[in-house]
Amino acid sequence: MAGGKIRVVVYGCGVMGGRIARALLDKKSFEIAGAVDVDPKLVGRDLGEALEIGKKLGVSVEKDAAAAFSKAKADAVVHATSSHLKSVFPQLASCLEAGLDVVSTCEELSFPWKRHPDLSRDLDALARKCDATVVGTGINPGYLMDTLPAVLTAPCLRVESVHVTRMMNSAKRRIPFQEKVGTGLTPAQFQEKIRTGAITGHVGLQESIHMIAAALDWTLDDVTEFPPEAVLADRDVQTAVAVVKPGNVIGLKSLAHGKRAGKKAISMEFVAHAGVAEEYDEVLIKGEPDIRQRILGGVHGDVGTVAMTINTLPRAIAAAPGLKTMIDLAVPRAVP
Amino acid sequence: MAGGKIRVVVYGCGVMGGRIARALLDKKSFEIAGAVDVDPKLVGRDLGEALEIGKKLGVSVEKDAAAAFSKAKADAVVHATSSHLKSVFPQLASCLEAGLDVVSTCEELSFPWKRHPDLSRDLDALARKCDATVVGTGINPGYLMDTLPAVLTAPCLRVESVHVTRMMNSAKRRIPFQEKVGTGLTPAQFQEKIRTGAITGHVGLQESIHMIAAALDWTLDDVTEFPPEAVLADRDVQTAVAVVKPGNVIGLKSLAHGKRAGKKAISMEFVAHAGVAEEYDEVLIKGEPDIRQRILGGVHGDVGTVAMTINTLPRAIAAAPGLKTMIDLAVPRAVP
Repeated sequence: MAGGKIRVVVYGCGVMGGRIARALLDKKSFEIAGAVDVDPKLVGRDLGEALEIGKKLGVSVEKDAAAAFSKAKADAVVHATSSHLKSVFPQLASCLEAGLDVVSTCEELSFPWKRHPDLSRDLDALARKCDATVVGTGINPGYLMDTLPAVLTAPCLRVESVHVTRMMNSAKRRIPFQEKVGTGLTPAQFQEKIRTGAITGHVGLQESIHMIAAALDWTLDDVTEFPPEAVLADRDVQTAVAVVKPGNVIGLKSLAHGKRAGKKAISMEFVAHAGVAEEYDEVLIKGEPDIRQRILGGVHGDVGTVAMTINTLPRAIAAAPGLKTMIDLAVPRAVP
Repeated sequence: MAGGKIRVVVYGCGVMGGRIARALLDKKSFEIAGAVDVDPKLVGRDLGEALEIGKKLGVSVEKDAAAAFSKAKADAVVHATSSHLKSVFPQLASCLEAGLDVVSTCEELSFPWKRHPDLSRDLDALARKCDATVVGTGINPGYLMDTLPAVLTAPCLRVESVHVTRMMNSAKRRIPFQEKVGTGLTPAQFQEKIRTGAITGHVGLQESIHMIAAALDWTLDDVTEFPPEAVLADRDVQTAVAVVKPGNVIGLKSLAHGKRAGKKAISMEFVAHAGVAEEYDEVLIKGEPDIRQRILGGVHGDVGTVAMTINTLPRAIAAAPGLKTMIDLAVPRAVP
């Protein structure tokens, strides 16, 4: 940490990685020590040029992670390439093998122990062997639907159930997100895209449920995630993608729940469509006492994910080696 | 931790300590291993009798802490005797010298480094020497006005200011609390009690401000805590203490703020009076993004403090030795 700054390699310079890199440049606690991407349009270029920020940064985008790490003299890696643990496992392994702590936006990494128990064990063992820490985070999974609800149980003597709702107006988000929630499709097209996996709904509801259960030391009977449901326009709805006609898709709703002793103990509701009148993030806890919490206006997903990733870096560096989740780390907060 | 349970000594068996002890009995993660109090009405009695729970617990209330610890084979202590660090320092020292981790309700301990730098250094050194952890917590200070606001900055790329409000209807609280906020006094009596220190307002606003500043790595110019202001009845107000006539006191308001680079960066508003229409706990963060959060109905102080104290025990036990604050520990959450 030369000059007190944490030296970070940005692994993945796409939409999210690029935003993370630009945000790191604005923070006094960090400096960018290296960059990794396989995109031929980026490889070999100065990161500042690749990010189109109008200046060079003296850091070139490397195709080979190990080569980037050996140059970088880094403290940690922010990793932002894919939602799926299986595909990013070799990338994470390369970071750990270089002895670097890693914070990743990979959704499945936020609580990987249930969906990928074998990969999780392998990753944990590797991290311990390399004396490094690996953790997945982001706004969701990573914060709004798991870490924050867990924190909200802290003043409770007893918790019976936790219900979390994320209510988003997708028309306010970037166009790829609007397309991802099916905006402008007919119901038949939407169903076809669900069938082929082109629309997956939100990745992470299962992970969030399992993280809350782990935080509360609960054993769940089972966790059920339902296929996303289309939300249909009841009038002409103007969006950046299209004017959606009545009966066509303006977004989706994803539901999931975990049962405990036969009862719905943790439930998640992720709603993202055009025309949502009031955006919010809500946590309702039944227990002693009940907790009814709302973030009015919600938290913008992209900004939140960039912030969570960066703000988790010092906590990951300070943590004991191994595969961690957000609830293992010290209290999350903004880093200057 | 015999049988997987955390063995706890309850140090202080008064109103709060008694509530903590009763709550511990309802939890599967803990067992009570000992009890300490100097009250002659309690010393030597079985704790179950002292708590009037209709059964013996096989644990006697000891006057001498060291004697209690040597019998108890405990893992940790919950300490609930006083708000002021100077008066509890020897008690905390006795716990640490017995090698026991301590969670205390002492308000000034929640972030003691500014009000009591010398005592804090001594306590930290002693805790490290004894390989034990000491932390102060409760609903407030400890959670609503510091730890939770810190957690709410986690999805922010930039924080300019944090404003926290606790809005309580004191008529719903226990009578000693209603008296503590001046219910039924004339304005002159209220001022006299402020002058003599019989009414202090809320203890902990300074600590909460300093904890948020530490969480955000901010250096404050100064922290100002204003004397509590009386809130006066504008009509006859029925309370459990008295029918308060118009012009007399129904409660109080405490304000404090911390300045950074000349601007009010952290501010606290603690309001507790009869007739509050809507109770809530609110955090407003100005930054990127803004965060506007509310706990509707607020969190009951006594229940919350009991829960925070108990729920912090496993986190304190797992922490590195030393004097810690809530932001040093792993993410707080309910313990079964």
